[in-house]
Amino acid sequence: MKKQGEAKEGAKRGRGRPRGATEQGLETRQHLYETSLRLIAARGFDETTLRDIAQEAGVSVGLLYRYFPSKRAIVLALYEELSARYAEAAVKMGVGPWRERFLFALRTSLEVLGPHREPLTALVPVLVGGKEEGLFSPGTAFSRLRVQGAFVDAALGATDAPGGTTGPALGRVLYMVHLAVVLWWLLDKSPRQRATDGLIRLLERLLLPASLALKVPGAGAFVRTADALFRQGLLGEPAAPGDAGEEPAS
Amino acid sequence: MKKQGEAKEGAKRGRGRPRGATEQGLETRQHLYETSLRLIAARGFDETTLRDIAQEAGVSVGLLYRYFPSKRAIVLALYEELSARYAEAAVKMGVGPWRERFLFALRTSLEVLGPHREPLTALVPVLVGGKEEGLFSPGTAFSRLRVQGAFVDAALGATDAPGGTTGPALGRVLYMVHLAVVLWWLLDKSPRQRATDGLIRLLERLLLPASLALKVPGAGAFVRTADALFRQGLLGEPAAPGDAGEEPAS
Repeated sequence: MKKQGEAKEGAKRGRGRPRGATEQGLETRQHLYETSLRLIAARGFDETTLRDIAQEAGVSVGLLYRYFPSKRAIVLALYEELSARYAEAAVKMGVGPWRERFLFALRTSLEVLGPHREPLTALVPVLVGGKEEGLFSPGTAFSRLRVQGAFVDAALGATDAPGGTTGPALGRVLYMVHLAVVLWWLLDKSPRQRATDGLIRLLERLLLPASLALKVPGAGAFVRTADALFRQGLLGEPAAPGDAGEEPAS
Repeated sequence: MKKQGEAKEGAKRGRGRPRGATEQGLETRQHLYETSLRLIAARGFDETTLRDIAQEAGVSVGLLYRYFPSKRAIVLALYEELSARYAEAAVKMGVGPWRERFLFALRTSLEVLGPHREPLTALVPVLVGGKEEGLFSPGTAFSRLRVQGAFVDAALGATDAPGGTTGPALGRVLYMVHLAVVLWWLLDKSPRQRATDGLIRLLERLLLPASLALKVPGAGAFVRTADALFRQGLLGEPAAPGDAGEEPAS
């Protein structure tokens, strides 16, 4: 068994480890990552090349390539980082009805994304329209599911959690509502995105009637249909028996 | 005064008219326009160059440039064409409550856009994220206002039109809802965009309770606030006194 000091020394020298796992490698990676995001924020995603990034960071294209072989890899690293931070912040969700837990999950998302608004705004065309790096692409599923999980948890762990399959369906529908608010926030031209605060206040006012309506017979089917449409339409999942985009009878 | 035959002959030869106004010019323009949209649909907006378009159309870059000096000009021509067709189709709106007139306006929009779904899907990054050619850019205001006008008319001409400034505000909010449905339709991965039909059926079920709720005191203020937030947040208009993103007292 190695002594701790030895293991640390080994890690520092990067013996047998992939590039980027040493302390120096991590620093280089972070430098390249931040330079990339700064350039993308300033010039736009399509207008930024790997060559530009290498030049700005003062490294060779070859070295950049070993850390980030494509602009896609940079975007995926950003998703990975933000979704991990979000998952960490979202565990502080309190006990309460789903409408309160949802508002916490939504506000926490905007807080985590806040410092990165500039590169994210530059990435809107990619987030919404990108076939490979888009929000609904299979390649970004890991980060998406991590964030979506917090919204499903907001519904399932609520004091008024709907029963059966309506609970997770509500969580996924709330995740979609959250995405719409985030898109609005990224496009928001008002000073300090003040209009987004207003939008969340309006949403807040709709949540109480919505949570009352969810207790009415048939409302669960409405939520399950909305969820099925989201999965079929935006994620491209095949229709499951009974949710073929049709409203169930209940 | 010229005889009609003379005037027609003059038009044919393009005497003193800008290029594109002769019959042959119009044909060339149409050929270049259709070739552009086909290439953009196949390759994506950013991946298509004016050089590619000229080559595909079998003309010189110089000739293409005289009709379409930039890719932006092509996108604006598409907006112009589709919004004109839409305005024409939307005049057939029948008498009835605003929820029915809105559904007509929404379905008509999807019918007019239908045959152009492929280039429009390729343009989603531009429509949503583009600073100059985007849906909310000042440069596209003419086409936007033409379509928005039909939705404002759907509210104002309804048998249950809300009074005062709530009527036009409702129309603009409905226009926004329509844009969200169009975006969903462009991203819809389900066969024959079946999930969009389902989404419209869900929306239809929400419209009756929504139109009843609009008769409750205070609901008008809610709609006016939503409209003010849309104008400030997405269009970047300055806050007017009384709609500063805050909810009016009423």
